[in-house]
Amino acid sequence: MRILLSNDDGYFAPGIEHLARALRDLADITVVAPERDRSGASNSLTLDRPLSLRRAANGFYFVNGTPTDCVHLAVTGMLDELPDMVISGINHGANMGDDTIYSGTVAAATEGYLLGVPSLAISLASRHCEHFATAAQVAREIVADLLQRPFAEPMLLNVNVPDLPYAELRGRVVTRLGKRHKAEPVVRMQTPRDETVYWVGAAGEAQDAGEGTDFHAVRQQRVSMTPLQIDLTHNAQLASLRDWMGE
Amino acid sequence: MRILLSNDDGYFAPGIEHLARALRDLADITVVAPERDRSGASNSLTLDRPLSLRRAANGFYFVNGTPTDCVHLAVTGMLDELPDMVISGINHGANMGDDTIYSGTVAAATEGYLLGVPSLAISLASRHCEHFATAAQVAREIVADLLQRPFAEPMLLNVNVPDLPYAELRGRVVTRLGKRHKAEPVVRMQTPRDETVYWVGAAGEAQDAGEGTDFHAVRQQRVSMTPLQIDLTHNAQLASLRDWMGE
Amino acid sequence: MRILLSNDDGYFAPGIEHLARALRDLADITVVAPERDRSGASNSLTLDRPLSLRRAANGFYFVNGTPTDCVHLAVTGMLDELPDMVISGINHGANMGDDTIYSGTVAAATEGYLLGVPSLAISLASRHCEHFATAAQVAREIVADLLQRPFAEPMLLNVNVPDLPYAELRGRVVTRLGKRHKAEPVVRMQTPRDETVYWVGAAGEAQDAGEGTDFHAVRQQRVSMTPLQIDLTHNAQLASLRDWMGE
Amino acid sequence: MRILLSNDDGYFAPGIEHLARALRDLADITVVAPERDRSGASNSLTLDRPLSLRRAANGFYFVNGTPTDCVHLAVTGMLDELPDMVISGINHGANMGDDTIYSGTVAAATEGYLLGVPSLAISLASRHCEHFATAAQVAREIVADLLQRPFAEPMLLNVNVPDLPYAELRGRVVTRLGKRHKAEPVVRMQTPRDETVYWVGAAGEAQDAGEGTDFHAVRQQRVSMTPLQIDLTHNAQLASLRDWMGE
Repeated sequence: MRILLSNDDGYFAPGIEHLARALRDLADITVVAPERDRSGASNSLTLDRPLSLRRAANGFYFVNGTPTDCVHLAVTGMLDELPDMVISGINHGANMGDDTIYSGTVAAATEGYLLGVPSLAISLASRHCEHFATAAQVAREIVADLLQRPFAEPMLLNVNVPDLPYAELRGRVVTRLGKRHKAEPVVRMQTPRDETVYWVGAAGEAQDAGEGTDFHAVRQQRVSMTPLQIDLTHNAQLASLRDWMGE
Repeated sequence: MRILLSNDDGYFAPGIEHLARALRDLADITVVAPERDRSGASNSLTLDRPLSLRRAANGFYFVNGTPTDCVHLAVTGMLDELPDMVISGINHGANMGDDTIYSGTVAAATEGYLLGVPSLAISLASRHCEHFATAAQVAREIVADLLQRPFAEPMLLNVNVPDLPYAELRGRVVTRLGKRHKAEPVVRMQTPRDETVYWVGAAGEAQDAGEGTDFHAVRQQRVSMTPLQIDLTHNAQLASLRDWMGE
Repeated sequence: MRILLSNDDGYFAPGIEHLARALRDLADITVVAPERDRSGASNSLTLDRPLSLRRAANGFYFVNGTPTDCVHLAVTGMLDELPDMVISGINHGANMGDDTIYSGTVAAATEGYLLGVPSLAISLASRHCEHFATAAQVAREIVADLLQRPFAEPMLLNVNVPDLPYAELRGRVVTRLGKRHKAEPVVRMQTPRDETVYWVGAAGEAQDAGEGTDFHAVRQQRVSMTPLQIDLTHNAQLASLRDWMGE
Repeated sequence: MRILLSNDDGYFAPGIEHLARALRDLADITVVAPERDRSGASNSLTLDRPLSLRRAANGFYFVNGTPTDCVHLAVTGMLDELPDMVISGINHGANMGDDTIYSGTVAAATEGYLLGVPSLAISLASRHCEHFATAAQVAREIVADLLQRPFAEPMLLNVNVPDLPYAELRGRVVTRLGKRHKAEPVVRMQTPRDETVYWVGAAGEAQDAGEGTDFHAVRQQRVSMTPLQIDLTHNAQLASLRDWMGE
């Protein structure tokens, strides 16, 4: 099995090192990740300049681009064969609910999926990530399971792992994405040159976090697994929009 | 009515100028757009540095950030009241099918929608955009219609306009997103310093472009209007994933 | 006479507009400036990606690069003939003493000089620039004088203009660069995500600002004109270094 | 002795690793270098956003800024005491003649010197650097010599080392900077999206490369040592400029 790893925290991040180590006896691993922290990069693609690909001392490759660039470049220009799987992470922090829209970690997996490869994004769901080893073990188990029983159809899985010792996990559960409250407003600051600048504020707290959601699962100490899709059509609104237009 | 305009081509782009001019007698217009071309930015948010907001000679504001940053900053830190609408565009080029995943134009509208504002992305669907005036007129008509009859529920509309003289349009039609073939592979080049670099290749041709899709509508010289959603849960796969997991 | 204008504040900055307007009946003017504020860019050259050149509505060209890139690209790839002069500015703020090391405005003129063109950097010496018209008038007079009497040898001139109404200027004077005290230390801040970041602090106050220096001239309400060189060899230390090495 | 190391190739570059290893038993070493390749950065300072400082697995610190930012931040905000020396490099490629204007490696040393610390930039003078160990050994010897006999006054030294096995070096020699011919013109390319872009071309060949210059020394297989200054005043032109102005 050939697995391509990427992330949005940068090729040097502890999460991707844990991941590579956990999987290396199960599969041929290639790491292609951003040269610097690109958290929040979403699916952005670099169109106005070319990308370069360099190899670090530990054998990981790094790209001066986004997570999406990394997977795109690896799959369409670097690897000789399509990988059997793309895994992105382990992200430093949760990617639940609306986070998935902004996440570079999820985006790297999405790019794999768009290119026809079963893909998985994995995140450690806390602010002060302590248990990367737990998430790495979870990733390893999913890969081992897939080696036994592949999915019937291509999937794009979004996995969030509670930041706990492995023994305290209470299993895996299939979830839907919850929703967050609106983000906090931007935070205004003065620079030392007395200019006003604005920091993007923190994400909102969970709003729709009831049973069945990713938020709920993680609070229950369970690994949350959400299948994602990439067709943004709002099917439920097609009729009401037709109605509004008098079609 | 107060409308916030943004785009991903930059505050100086002809598309946003056409849009502002077409709407200024229908609504109070504020323009907050990126200081430079950010095509392909998707929903990326700038988290590692603060943003600055400057005012150009023509009254447009520009931000050293992404389209999403622009709308986020305008709505949560600059405008005194929530705008009644966010309009993003007129994009230089189509945003149909999978393009919506990568588009900064769609992302700016998405950010408005996430912040509770009805939002619309509008794109001129050709490579060599000639008829911005047509798209501006289409935007004007939609806004005029909404002034008469608002939507019953918040919407995030993705509008693609054929690049034709206005008189040659054949009406508006509600569509779903089509799909493209996989993108072209990256294009390898040598720099003058003899380093290998890679350009992200062109988007794929339309694949699922049959009746009912945005691709089809535009080919029929019709304005395509697709309602978008932001919940990426793949509901149709929940059962098969549960099955795989033996839940 | 053909003059190439650039700056480091961006092609949209009021300083370069004043400059272009003041010179347009004396010379053929081409403006090629950075697409965004690149203050502090020094002589940096963009080597890891290519540059693009775009034309704004007002006829100015802008480049997604540094001030040095702009002049380099204009002279070696865009203009049909070598310009007769490169003028960079009018900078928003002084470029005196050690500032010249960091200044993108001075760097744009330096690049012109390195490419064999007499070059001039012009700055408005205050924090809250009010009198761009004064500096524009000064630039106009210098160009008019040069049309009458060119320099005997190529020069790289660094001009600083007091931020005063033109009538209050007390003439031009040749100066040497003064020196500043060390810069203020970096300023530590916490981001809304509770990360520690550091802003580069303000430049130091003038230290060597006695008679003959640029600082002194400007304080005397005079236009400071300093000829600059680009050979960084410390000739006065050659002997003591040889001595240390026992040569 | 406390030595601060930086470079412009990035904290992961082989040159800085060789340097750190060669010096670690002679001095307390702190490495603060850019998070990515910033070749060509010159003395650019980051003024429009704050800097962050992170620690890599090997103990090196990296900054999302320029070489100048790195030294500035380390000296004014991170280190408890002023270091006894700043060493920048080992650069991948020569920094001779006019290169010194553009070099980020020289700039890092310049920033140390401006902040009152004896500083040294060291470069391996070839395109395909093979002998970092040679340059590391040269740096070690200079530091060892300085521990015995410090300079009488602060110095900013620019050192270029031939890319040869150590045994083939023919000693060290004090030099002045040579000059290069003008740089090659920009190189025009078409992107896959059919846009025209321009790469900055190669540096010019050595022009003033006669005896006494850095170019000459390196060609003679000698280590070139040039003391640099930071006062750009062109003293030799002061009189002719006064003359032109009729003072």
